[in-house]
Formats: sequence, structure tokens, C-alpha cells
Amino acid sequence: MSKLDICFSPELLPLYDLRGQVAVIVDILRASSTIVTALGEGVTHVFPVASLEECAVYGQQHGCLTAAERDGIPAAGFDLGNSPFGFLDASRPVSGRALTISTTNGTTALRRSLAAEAVVVGAFLNLAAIADFARQQGRDVLVVCAGWKGRFCLEDTVFGGALAERLAPHFDVRSSDATLAALHLWQQGRADLSAYLLQSAHVRRLNSLEASQDFEFCLQIDAYADVLPVWQEDRLVRGG
Amino acid sequence: MSKLDICFSPELLPLYDLRGQVAVIVDILRASSTIVTALGEGVTHVFPVASLEECAVYGQQHGCLTAAERDGIPAAGFDLGNSPFGFLDASRPVSGRALTISTTNGTTALRRSLAAEAVVVGAFLNLAAIADFARQQGRDVLVVCAGWKGRFCLEDTVFGGALAERLAPHFDVRSSDATLAALHLWQQGRADLSAYLLQSAHVRRLNSLEASQDFEFCLQIDAYADVLPVWQEDRLVRGG
Repeated sequence: MSKLDICFSPELLPLYDLRGQVAVIVDILRASSTIVTALGEGVTHVFPVASLEECAVYGQQHGCLTAAERDGIPAAGFDLGNSPFGFLDASRPVSGRALTISTTNGTTALRRSLAAEAVVVGAFLNLAAIADFARQQGRDVLVVCAGWKGRFCLEDTVFGGALAERLAPHFDVRSSDATLAALHLWQQGRADLSAYLLQSAHVRRLNSLEASQDFEFCLQIDAYADVLPVWQEDRLVRGG
Repeated sequence: MSKLDICFSPELLPLYDLRGQVAVIVDILRASSTIVTALGEGVTHVFPVASLEECAVYGQQHGCLTAAERDGIPAAGFDLGNSPFGFLDASRPVSGRALTISTTNGTTALRRSLAAEAVVVGAFLNLAAIADFARQQGRDVLVVCAGWKGRFCLEDTVFGGALAERLAPHFDVRSSDATLAALHLWQQGRADLSAYLLQSAHVRRLNSLEASQDFEFCLQIDAYADVLPVWQEDRLVRGG
């Protein structure tokens, strides 16, 4: 029986052997939710990069849309911030365009997970796509939480619990304490996920109106149920 | 208001600045519980060491009792294993003796925390002593979970939640997601802590009869309510 484990921080990745496994990269607020939304709205592929400089360079080299923010605010000189709503603006259609997005925590988590057999990006928005993919692959799965500057964060963990619940009939979700804890937290919070996660330190940091709309958006389960961002060579494309 | 944070693995310690803080080292199964028991039963001081070799050397140099195990089994050539019951055997009194104990996860956590203003060892057995000390110090507190080979483990985390609950009136326990999660897990498990922690992967690994007795023993809250193991120079002594 395949196993689901959860790594609470990219800093802990050296403890895990990702070879032959599926890595699910999670950064609920907001990188992974935004990437799912972008691909769901017709963006052809996504280059996640760590720095603003790389983001600008990729934008020029590949002629793609650029999305970047620092400290929760859209960075100057880029097309978009990191809000999923940037991809839902009818006055600026994104379909058919490529995207490069600057995301510190998410990019770190992704780049450190490339030893895995398959690397996908997970969010509440595409929980079903991730669960389906994991079942099809039949491999061990490691949920890699981007965390907050390397530390544990509640929203990524609770996503891991939600995925564990969906996979529980087919996967071993009880041989890792991290997965058990995530399952407990998800089961505790699921009835009112928004109120539950509003306790989170990270969420309270995003206290602007825009961030609050983003927050509610990112908690929608399966709004993009068939969008599977898969890593291919140097980019994320829509698979499945 | 002072803050309580929880570090789920010694591997994450580089993310925290321990200067000026109180570090509470926790390895519920079993190093920290055994150290509390030893000091509670009259052991004068404890040298925690990482390797069996160091344990033997300290034993000879300091003429002290030696306690060591590997993979849950008492190691050959030492006076005791890592069971707290070794210190409760009337036929071999330990009062007035010094002790050196080999504990891989616990020693790593302790040695990496020495930048803190004060380093103490916490367990359910001495929860009250730790909470009292933290209140008296009035400093920020970091609970350092020894974990299981660097990974998250449930029993150390739940201890962090129990401590957070005791300190909540006087400490900020809501500005860290790790503390929030630990509080939730503690509140979920506290009514039947033994059954709750029996789910844990680590606990299930300790499936011998001796280990099961140790497990129940280590979950007793405040059995040594006034035993405070404090780091002093090169050893743990009873403070408070």
C-alpha cells in the first residue's frame, strides 16, 4: 500500500528520499492557488522563480506575463501581483499566454523536490485533481508544505490533512505522525475552514481587503477540480 | 507579553533566534521523561551524551551511573536502559549518584539550543515545574521537540500544546501557527491522552511490554511537579 507523508517545511526535505515518489507542492496562500487558477483560466505554462530579477528576465526572454509581489503587495514593473483574481479579470484575458511568477517559499519547495518521480502543485482549488493523480500513480506521496519562511504553517498543513482524508481508503495515512496531525487538524477545521484558518498567524498578516478576498477564494474546494499543474523540464504545465 | 513558540524538529532550529529566550527541550519518549524521573529520585546531575562511546567515557571519568539503549533495547555494558523504571528499582537506589545518559534525538536538540538564556528539560511528568519557571522568567519560550530522527512527532508536539494551555493567560500563544496547531492537538487528545498517542507511529514502534509500561508512565501529568532539570555548564541539575 502506498504511503502519504507530509513535510512541514522545505528545510526538512533532506530527511526524505523523494526518489520514486510523487511530490505535491503546497503554498495555499497564495502561490499554489494562483498557479492552479492561472492554468485553469487558460495560461499555457508557468515558470515559478524565486527572485524579482529572474521574474523580469523570464518575462523578457519568453515574452510571458509576469506576476510578482513582495510582502503581500504587487511589485512595481510587473503585469500582475500574486492574487488569483489577476487571472479572472475579463478586461485582461490571460488565456493562451505563458506566465512567470515570483514566489519565494513556493519556488524553494518546488526546486528542492525535483528528485521526485513526479512533481505537482496542489491547492484546495484542485484537491480532486491531486487525489486522482496520486491514485493513478500508485506511488508514495510526499506533501511538501512551502510554509512561512521555512516554518510550519497551518493552511498548508490542513490541505495535507484534506488530501490524506481523500486518499485514506487507498493509502497508508497512519504511519507518519505528521500525516496523523494534519488529518486531525483538517477534521477539526473542515466544518468552517475559513474561521479555523483565520486564527493563523500568516493569515492575520494578510489583513488587507484584497488579501481577505484572496483568502476566501483560495479555500474553495475543487473550484478547479480537473486542473493538475505538473512539472515538466523547466515549467509547470497542465497535465491529467 | 512574552511569546510561546514551538520548534517541531531540531533541524528547524536555525530559523529561530534563541538568544534571551528559554528553551524547553522535549523528548517525551523517553529521554526527557527519564531525566525528570532520575532527578526526581535523587540523582545529583545528568550528562546527556549522543553516543554510546561518550556514555562509557563519561561513566568512567565521572564514576557515574550509565544509561543507554539502541533501538529501544538496553545497550550491553551499561548500568541502565532509557526506561524511567530503572530509577524506581528499590534494589538499586540511585539517590546521590550522578548519571550519564545516551540519547540521540534529545542530546541533539539540547546541544543545538545552548544559545538560549536558559535551557530546561520538559515532560508531562514535570509540566507544572516548566510552566512555573517560564512564568517566573517572563521571557519568550521556545519548546524544542526532539522529534523522531529529525521529523515531527506527535507526543512532543502535544506536550507543547499542554504547556501552551497552562501559559495562555500570561503568554502570547496565538502568534505562531506551530503553537496553535499544538494547542488544537492537545485539546483534542487530552481527555484520553494514552489512546490518542497510541495512534502515533513512534509509539507503535515501542511495542514491547516494557515500552508500553514506560509509555503510560511518561504520560502522567505532574508526577514530578517540582522537578526542574536546568542546564548548567556541562550538565543538567535540579533547579527551581
